[in-house]
Amino acid sequence: MNHKFGIAIHGGAGTILRSSLTPEKEKLYKDALREALSTGYSILEKGGSSLDAVEAAINSLEDCPLFNAGKGAVFNSDGKHEMDASIMNGKDLSAGAVGLISNVKNPISLARKIMENTTHVFVCGEGAENYAKAFRLKIESDQYFYDDFRYQQWQQARMAGGAFLDHHVQSGKSADEKKFGTVGAVALDKQGNLAAGTSTGGMTNKSPGRLGDSAVIGAGTYANNNTCAISCTGHGELFIRAVVGHDVSALMEYKNLSLAEACHEVVMKKLVAIEGEGGLIAIDKHGNIELPFNSEGMYRAMRCSDGREEVAIYK
Amino acid sequence: MNHKFGIAIHGGAGTILRSSLTPEKEKLYKDALREALSTGYSILEKGGSSLDAVEAAINSLEDCPLFNAGKGAVFNSDGKHEMDASIMNGKDLSAGAVGLISNVKNPISLARKIMENTTHVFVCGEGAENYAKAFRLKIESDQYFYDDFRYQQWQQARMAGGAFLDHHVQSGKSADEKKFGTVGAVALDKQGNLAAGTSTGGMTNKSPGRLGDSAVIGAGTYANNNTCAISCTGHGELFIRAVVGHDVSALMEYKNLSLAEACHEVVMKKLVAIEGEGGLIAIDKHGNIELPFNSEGMYRAMRCSDGREEVAIYK
Repeated sequence: MNHKFGIAIHGGAGTILRSSLTPEKEKLYKDALREALSTGYSILEKGGSSLDAVEAAINSLEDCPLFNAGKGAVFNSDGKHEMDASIMNGKDLSAGAVGLISNVKNPISLARKIMENTTHVFVCGEGAENYAKAFRLKIESDQYFYDDFRYQQWQQARMAGGAFLDHHVQSGKSADEKKFGTVGAVALDKQGNLAAGTSTGGMTNKSPGRLGDSAVIGAGTYANNNTCAISCTGHGELFIRAVVGHDVSALMEYKNLSLAEACHEVVMKKLVAIEGEGGLIAIDKHGNIELPFNSEGMYRAMRCSDGREEVAIYK
Repeated sequence: MNHKFGIAIHGGAGTILRSSLTPEKEKLYKDALREALSTGYSILEKGGSSLDAVEAAINSLEDCPLFNAGKGAVFNSDGKHEMDASIMNGKDLSAGAVGLISNVKNPISLARKIMENTTHVFVCGEGAENYAKAFRLKIESDQYFYDDFRYQQWQQARMAGGAFLDHHVQSGKSADEKKFGTVGAVALDKQGNLAAGTSTGGMTNKSPGRLGDSAVIGAGTYANNNTCAISCTGHGELFIRAVVGHDVSALMEYKNLSLAEACHEVVMKKLVAIEGEGGLIAIDKHGNIELPFNSEGMYRAMRCSDGREEVAIYK
């Protein structure tokens, strides 16, 4: 029962330059990451499950307007918020995923309900929202998700005539400055169980109905007690094509790569080869933690029972 | 240019007992499989691409009312047809997937348009239907998809109070008799390129918004020129959790298993361990073809340029 335990979280990756973030704003982001990290870590410390830690850490990030998930979700081209989330339990490979949902305060909690209380794994749109109501999850008005900064972002994206992959393009900056707003968590608990979860608001001004990797088990989210737990953030289309989460796991299980080697192979080689920008957070069954990304930066944090702790944004 | 080439197709798996299929009905199914097979094979024979062969073979099955895809799609609990499809190009790992679409005659062709003519990979619902209209794909009325047999099936499922995974439960038979109605094709062309595609009408009386593995790249559909092309049919939730398509490919690429060994490991061991009933069709870069299933039967057919040919239903 003295198993090493730990948690890692992310709040999105992309072109996050030191010059574009004021010290005050940097502090806001780091404080929010620290709060989510400590929420999850304290659950693990008390002997709670990795699933509970992952859900609680993501709830904290979903409730924070700084990140593109839950409250901070961006506007799609219809001026709506369409959110996706998925969660996976490494113990029995059970999984839950929701896509294209509106007005649900915490999409990751709905994904967990789908996993634990229905015969389904993947439910989208109104069907998923009906489950949220049936499970008495918190429903919020459009007003709750309204954010003036996000609204201005949407107007900029509309004027530029494109969908922005980033979650806070600065005015005057080109769409080349990509930021992939998504949040996620992976954890290993004292019982040796791994879990992973991811939640996102998608791309600013995206077409209605577009799903990225955050809703796709095997791509944006994957957990398997035999190997590791993974949560991704990046250019979703490329992450789906590369089946990123399962690929890291398969490289460990079938090719005997270490977590670090498998992450490097997928993020720094395979994704780079198809121009798949972004990163991931990973923890393995031994408590090793990796936070690789091939973009300029990634909002990230980790804490392990062996004393390691990190909160970082840039390379 | 004298590369071996071939194609395999399926029309669903499940409890298909010899006793429940009259000789006349068996002939109807086999004729339909033969027609789809020959449509795809003749494209390959003339030097056409594996993508074209896969799309054409699936179009043929989608247009046939016998199979649960396209015209033969089952009713969901709202009395609607919600169809899913996905396609993948092994040459460059490009992919397209659509979910929860209605009134589109050939969902696999929409998945291909998403892959080739948009920046997206995965689009669901009305957003996807709008793409179908923009791409001038054939839209059909609800009447086109109406089938008296499917309607009776839906009424039975409603009375039984459950969702049927099968696509033609016989009256008087229990829901234990599972048939997973889905169609799919995999092909290797003379240029050595692999492709895979899958199309389905989902489960009779399913909840609106439920997605199975047929829409999920890496699970129901996967193709990679380094290894193989896979299309699955079965209990979608379990196939998503097992990331079936990518797992077969990873076992070949990272563990050096043959196509037959990798298929056996996934379909007969890993899926069986989590009670994931169903099967898959697979072709590798050398032209080896496997059609494994752990259910009673699977509608299947294959033809290879080396002379092998098979059309079968039972074990």
